[in-house]
Amino acid sequence: MSFRDDGHKAVDWAADYLERVGDLPVFAQVTPGDIRARLPQSPPEEAESFDAVLRDLDEIILPGVTHWQSPRFFAYFAVSAGGPGILAELLAATLNSVGVLWRTAPASTELELLTCDWVRQLLGLSGEWRGHIEETASQSTLAALMVARRTTGRNVIVCSDQAHSSIEKGARMLGMETRKVPTDSEFRMVTDGLELDDAAAVVAAVGTTSTTSVDPVAEIADRCAAAGTWLHVDAAYAGSAMVCPEFRWAFEGVHRADSLVVNAHKWLYVPMDCSLLFTRRPEAFRATFSLVPEYLRAAEQDAFNISEYSPSLGRRFRSLKLWATLRCYGAEGLRARIREAIRLAALFEGWVRDEPGWELCAPRPFSVVCFRKEGSDEENEAIVDRVNASGEIFISHTKLNGRYVLRLAIGNEHSTEDDIRRAWDALRDFG
Amino acid sequence: MSFRDDGHKAVDWAADYLERVGDLPVFAQVTPGDIRARLPQSPPEEAESFDAVLRDLDEIILPGVTHWQSPRFFAYFAVSAGGPGILAELLAATLNSVGVLWRTAPASTELELLTCDWVRQLLGLSGEWRGHIEETASQSTLAALMVARRTTGRNVIVCSDQAHSSIEKGARMLGMETRKVPTDSEFRMVTDGLELDDAAAVVAAVGTTSTTSVDPVAEIADRCAAAGTWLHVDAAYAGSAMVCPEFRWAFEGVHRADSLVVNAHKWLYVPMDCSLLFTRRPEAFRATFSLVPEYLRAAEQDAFNISEYSPSLGRRFRSLKLWATLRCYGAEGLRARIREAIRLAALFEGWVRDEPGWELCAPRPFSVVCFRKEGSDEENEAIVDRVNASGEIFISHTKLNGRYVLRLAIGNEHSTEDDIRRAWDALRDFG
Repeated sequence: MSFRDDGHKAVDWAADYLERVGDLPVFAQVTPGDIRARLPQSPPEEAESFDAVLRDLDEIILPGVTHWQSPRFFAYFAVSAGGPGILAELLAATLNSVGVLWRTAPASTELELLTCDWVRQLLGLSGEWRGHIEETASQSTLAALMVARRTTGRNVIVCSDQAHSSIEKGARMLGMETRKVPTDSEFRMVTDGLELDDAAAVVAAVGTTSTTSVDPVAEIADRCAAAGTWLHVDAAYAGSAMVCPEFRWAFEGVHRADSLVVNAHKWLYVPMDCSLLFTRRPEAFRATFSLVPEYLRAAEQDAFNISEYSPSLGRRFRSLKLWATLRCYGAEGLRARIREAIRLAALFEGWVRDEPGWELCAPRPFSVVCFRKEGSDEENEAIVDRVNASGEIFISHTKLNGRYVLRLAIGNEHSTEDDIRRAWDALRDFG
Repeated sequence: MSFRDDGHKAVDWAADYLERVGDLPVFAQVTPGDIRARLPQSPPEEAESFDAVLRDLDEIILPGVTHWQSPRFFAYFAVSAGGPGILAELLAATLNSVGVLWRTAPASTELELLTCDWVRQLLGLSGEWRGHIEETASQSTLAALMVARRTTGRNVIVCSDQAHSSIEKGARMLGMETRKVPTDSEFRMVTDGLELDDAAAVVAAVGTTSTTSVDPVAEIADRCAAAGTWLHVDAAYAGSAMVCPEFRWAFEGVHRADSLVVNAHKWLYVPMDCSLLFTRRPEAFRATFSLVPEYLRAAEQDAFNISEYSPSLGRRFRSLKLWATLRCYGAEGLRARIREAIRLAALFEGWVRDEPGWELCAPRPFSVVCFRKEGSDEENEAIVDRVNASGEIFISHTKLNGRYVLRLAIGNEHSTEDDIRRAWDALRDFG
């Protein structure tokens, strides 16, 4: 095969896909097992052409793709990968740098620290903070919990009943205990009576998963400081909005936390995976993660090895895509996109508010709207099922105060007012 | 920007790089901080062109890259990314599928299970085994240790003094204890007197990091079965060699293990990151990792969600690169490449054996040769430092029986007899 020729075909495939993704059914119209059944059950003995891969990508794989890149993907957190980051992944795979120590990937190591520092500046955090890249928020939070346990010698993780499932899962994976505290009427952690003497860490949310509510981080920071408890802030989704100064009210108190996760692959237009884990206490990370065996001892004693601050030993060149995105969008471009997503969400929120028979179910601080049609849970669930099956849009749900609630999340940089109009029309039609 | 135009430029950059990588100094000729100092310390306010990114990639980043793709990269485990996998990373980033549940990425979920099953067949494992993809071997082993602890209720991990550092690091991150047992004269775990009553898991190696020695897995499996201990096999590097039947002696007893890690990004020509974690006990994984909150409950009750078997919730479409590689190389192509790497290693081993003043330091079962020049540790260390500084080749070292030992690892699919001849010439010149 010619890498160059196949590469140009792959780029054309990618460019065509991005042009037509808005025309495809958003939610994959398949049932479990369909895709696998259409593929050979054993690997080929003889080499095939890359053309054959591209053909099967179109004919077999694509019908099984739920299109996260569609401008009418409104489920979970809408995540979109921009062009610069996509192309940077090609470059990263081409270089195939494996960051084990600084010397094995000097540029990857230094660009990872630098681009995280760029994001730190964009978020309005002080120079005390240092970041590196983990795979997912689950992994970032897991790493923070490991550090919290080692640093405090305690075994309990405290979070609200609205905290992301990765926190309870992380605690369970580590053999730690989770204590969930209640939230108020706006889904924010209640801090009255918060008991932290046995707590290794509090995980506070800036943007919970169900409603994007914001915990009172400043109050929690006071209590953590008094109790010697690690404060980890989960801003995996909403943290990106802090590139706009008008949303920094949500970061109040975050500067006093010990660690913070913001997923650049969620709302900074970087392809999966690019979870940024920041800390003000790198020495505590090093005490938890540094272990350099003889076969990795290197001459550069003063070099910074990210593996000494992270669970994994090897790491790929993920910062290339963050770098390409930050440069090709610019700070102004990021701000404009985030403001537009939030503007669209506010518009949609207004439509729901004004529509008889529909109701809003939570405040909307960012780009996620929680709402429902008056009626039973079953009726609302049926709306979601039907609208998703139609392929017109893809949305998800949650439960709030025991009731089934629809969630519309905006984050794709190509979503327009027309797209959310189509979503609202579809929801009312099916409702 | 035009994604298509920029994409074609990126492909040309990648193709040019792969053509010239053999002419570049293998080991980056920079000192810590050089690269970062040459880049802006703050992100740009305004958008820049992708051309500017490509220009800086050449002028600033590339001098800081240690070229893992060079055919004269012989350090650690030589890892090379083939063309099909590189291009598949572009496609995966374009789709930006986020595998959270089956429904969020049906094709990604099913292709991940299928391609892991293809590798299972290539390795000669029975249909009892099921695999999925983790980021790195560190993460795969960490997941296995979590399952072992939960399944056995015990807290001790047993491995040999030659085991990879990720095992001790993993145990430490989990708050578990590591007990290292000695190895014999050929660096294999000594099983006499192995005490497992308190052991959650034994981690046995098929291909240790220093010498690629193979632990007596069958014997260890007997003892684990008797003691109710989980057996995890670390075949991160050497497992790939099992695609060739003549190397399957090294897998004896592995069919009785509970879990197994084989890194497709190490020696199956797939770009970082693609660590395959296999198990015969998926139900134990599910008991450890399944936690589905309300906002993720889905209609497809019978669908397989990989997140219920893995620490992370979200996962990217890594199987595309594994699929493209397995198809475009074919089983025969993989076998031929692995045989050639081992043939070259045997050739190099013979040169060392026949050269007065040099000595072999360990058996060579696969493609890594451990050797040294007669003389002091300092003299040998100086050889490594000088040969790496020359840029001609890049090698690493280890310590065996207290002595400094050079390691030459072959794994790049483009390494030729001429490349290893150049390595041997350079080593003798500097020695």
